Amino acid sequence: MSTSQQPEELYAVAVCLIPMGLEVPSVGPQIAECQRILEKSGLTFHMHGYGTNLEGPWSAVTKAIGDCHAAVHAMGTPRIATDIRIGTRTDKTIATGQGNLGKIARVEEILGKDKA
Amino acid sequence: MSTSQQPEELYAVAVCLIPMGLEVPSVGPQIAECQRILEKSGLTFHMHGYGTNLEGPWSAVTKAIGDCHAAVHAMGTPRIATDIRIGTRTDKTIATGQGNLGKIARVEEILGKDKA
Amino acid sequence: MSTSQQPEELYAVAVCLIPMGLEVPSVGPQIAECQRILEKSGLTFHMHGYGTNLEGPWSAVTKAIGDCHAAVHAMGTPRIATDIRIGTRTDKTIATGQGNLGKIARVEEILGKDKA
Amino acid sequence: MSTSQQPEELYAVAVCLIPMGLEVPSVGPQIAECQRILEKSGLTFHMHGYGTNLEGPWSAVTKAIGDCHAAVHAMGTPRIATDIRIGTRTDKTIATGQGNLGKIARVEEILGKDKA
Repeated sequence: MSTSQQPEELYAVAVCLIPMGLEVPSVGPQIAECQRILEKSGLTFHMHGYGTNLEGPWSAVTKAIGDCHAAVHAMGTPRIATDIRIGTRTDKTIATGQGNLGKIARVEEILGKDKA
Repeated sequence: MSTSQQPEELYAVAVCLIPMGLEVPSVGPQIAECQRILEKSGLTFHMHGYGTNLEGPWSAVTKAIGDCHAAVHAMGTPRIATDIRIGTRTDKTIATGQGNLGKIARVEEILGKDKA
Repeated sequence: MSTSQQPEELYAVAVCLIPMGLEVPSVGPQIAECQRILEKSGLTFHMHGYGTNLEGPWSAVTKAIGDCHAAVHAMGTPRIATDIRIGTRTDKTIATGQGNLGKIARVEEILGKDKA
Repeated sequence: MSTSQQPEELYAVAVCLIPMGLEVPSVGPQIAECQRILEKSGLTFHMHGYGTNLEGPWSAVTKAIGDCHAAVHAMGTPRIATDIRIGTRTDKTIATGQGNLGKIARVEEILGKDKA
């Protein structure tokens, strides 16, 4: 990546892809296809009830999301609206708590003191 | 509900509250306070790595989010930006799969067939 | 509002409502219906290319969004996903720059100095 | 880009970048810096009261957003949370109404008939 100006540090990202223009309101098959793409991407990811959280370098994360759009369109979806939240910080790395699991652990640690 | 025009069916919601103007980048104490408010609200909720998913009637959900803003301001936070995703559907109820757990189960069922 | 726990200060909000499960990808009629509801709400609002920004007290803003969901479902839309960004701050009021127009003016003022 | 699997069709995108961990709640200087980066990117963009809408190929759009994160961190911002909405469709191009301006025109055309 020596010639790229793209930052390659790790990003914590939350993605919610919304297929539009399907005749049915259910979108399980399209979301399942995105999970297959994320599985192949090698990125760390976790599906929850309102989207999927993933972590990785910006170029890999954006490639994966672009691939999801391409794949869901290829399934016959005429329109897609995706909502992405991205987080970066310079004071911590994933290893020291930037990541999604680190953030949960920190909040639970604080709440744990309420009961102590 | 006779006089209200507010829809009271159940909403599946994902909330990500972002405190701004703090001298430190960490926001664990503010997010923990929101968890305490959600606990008191009686709503079903689940914190994940990039926000908290909750489910309930629109009036209760919006009251809880408003209460979180008020409480986090009261902790000395001068500015708050919150991102909310809300979902409603008329073809299913929470019991028949509208809810956040129902959505995960459906995608996992589809993915399970890949391995069969 | 002396007995309410709901904060009633002004909120700056950005709403993007996404109808799902329609047979066509276009959603102009549904978005137009939301504009009619916002017009009746008396709130300050401004449609842009990726949603609508509005400003008002939390109870009025959330009522308007709930009314939009109800109206778009009533048009035959089986599922709706809405993305909302909300902003509050205690250091400024709408009059002193909290509002959406005040924020644009501030950024344009800074950029104007680049050319001076 | 002949070997890339990245889709290169045009995306309509809405970005809202939120600096965190600053001692002041105002973020005008950081948002102004992002506008300078978007200006240099050559992409079509439009700042509104709650973010900036832009349009362009996926690789150019994601590069611009990554550059904004890098530049805002370089200004001394320890943490950034960005919310992005992205839209793609296969039934229309920007020229035939996919773009942000085309969407506004379509809704205003519908609303115009209310008054006819």
